Amino acid sequence: MSKKTPLILVSNDDGITSRGIRALVETMMELGEVVVVAPNSPQSGMGHAITVGEALRLDPSIAFEDEGITAYECSGTPADCVKLAKHHVLRDRRPDLVVSGINHGSNSSVSVLYSGTMSAAIEAALEGFPAIGFSLCDYSPTADFSHALPFVRKIALQVLENGMPKDVALNVNIPIRSERAIKGIKICRQAKATWTEVFDQRKDPHGRDYYWMAGNFVNFDKGEDTDEWALSQNYISVVPCTFDLTAHHSISALASWEL
Amino acid sequence: MSKKTPLILVSNDDGITSRGIRALVETMMELGEVVVVAPNSPQSGMGHAITVGEALRLDPSIAFEDEGITAYECSGTPADCVKLAKHHVLRDRRPDLVVSGINHGSNSSVSVLYSGTMSAAIEAALEGFPAIGFSLCDYSPTADFSHALPFVRKIALQVLENGMPKDVALNVNIPIRSERAIKGIKICRQAKATWTEVFDQRKDPHGRDYYWMAGNFVNFDKGEDTDEWALSQNYISVVPCTFDLTAHHSISALASWEL
Repeated sequence: MSKKTPLILVSNDDGITSRGIRALVETMMELGEVVVVAPNSPQSGMGHAITVGEALRLDPSIAFEDEGITAYECSGTPADCVKLAKHHVLRDRRPDLVVSGINHGSNSSVSVLYSGTMSAAIEAALEGFPAIGFSLCDYSPTADFSHALPFVRKIALQVLENGMPKDVALNVNIPIRSERAIKGIKICRQAKATWTEVFDQRKDPHGRDYYWMAGNFVNFDKGEDTDEWALSQNYISVVPCTFDLTAHHSISALASWEL
Repeated sequence: MSKKTPLILVSNDDGITSRGIRALVETMMELGEVVVVAPNSPQSGMGHAITVGEALRLDPSIAFEDEGITAYECSGTPADCVKLAKHHVLRDRRPDLVVSGINHGSNSSVSVLYSGTMSAAIEAALEGFPAIGFSLCDYSPTADFSHALPFVRKIALQVLENGMPKDVALNVNIPIRSERAIKGIKICRQAKATWTEVFDQRKDPHGRDYYWMAGNFVNFDKGEDTDEWALSQNYISVVPCTFDLTAHHSISALASWEL
């Protein structure tokens, strides 16, 4: 860690009043100067959405006034928050670390694609900042984060000390609190899995159909080097994530096509 | 191509009434049976967002009635459209191809992360369907797609004939119509680039601040194997995209951390 106090930007996707961001802010306050820029309402499932067709609000927030923390709430998505933080709130100051979360719910395996939590971290990595998304495998708004915090602190400290591999953000998932102690931390790859949706079809009072999406997570990856395996064994999973979506291994196969 | 008529699902992110999806539907009608499930309003910049906190509408659409095409318009995101198409509209029928677009505007390089067009294609690839996102480097709602269509047809035909590498969706970007003829099609990797945002700060009539996001695309990748290079030379770029975000090359580096 550099001698000067690290500057740590905190965001999330559950909104600035969620229990998870409070746990994260309190943990980061032990490590550096914290600035919060987070959505003013829940943004779960927003993926890497940005706001392009409408204007954004960004207002000073009293959410962390008691802690003396500079905080802003934003009408946009998690990715918008990071962009506004970089270009407007922090201006010429570079954060030493950007953390997002702690999400109420898992973002392991393919859920990373839909994750607003991880989009904030990936947006930060795109900007060249060391970045971590933290998620707890507990969707409850009243989830207990206390067992996670020593590990959150440890991982953040390692990033502050070691820096981050280039163009990478960490996707950290933490098992739900239970009687079993967490066994430790595993570096993993993203498990191959899918969501099998079920659409619950209903009629509104006017006789018109509407649909609720519900899904079942199906893991068809038996690998013991995956995030799903680690979580199933009560380890914390850490997946380094890239924003280069190129399937490099497929380029040669496609080159033989008649195009 | 299989002997039976291929089933082709069409979606987009500009909405079912956009000029781009009409061009795509008309081109796909030459290749197979077309079913459309597309957003009922513009969804640009939605990334891989899904609708989790509210119900979805899905209504039969008259947008392609004259063509005799089954079409539905959906209140959700492009990824929602593909999920509803798979699990509700098509039910037990598997599409032989899922195409998204043609987007009004580029989705090359890192723009793929924010792209609703590509999220529909990637969602389809997650489901195991061959999938292509098409984008024209022209943001105008009245863009001229005619020069693009022979290439769109050619690429779709190649996918129908060859299938797709496993777990891959194609990100196809097409140069804007100009006096220069398109030189051909290049298989590429995603260029390393970024958007440098500028936030235009304004005051509303009540004296409260709001912000418009505007951005400049900055390409710092000189490689002649990138999508940006191909487009700059008036080639169509085709990037095979994965949904495994694992930065596999970074796993060993992180394994040396004290975690």
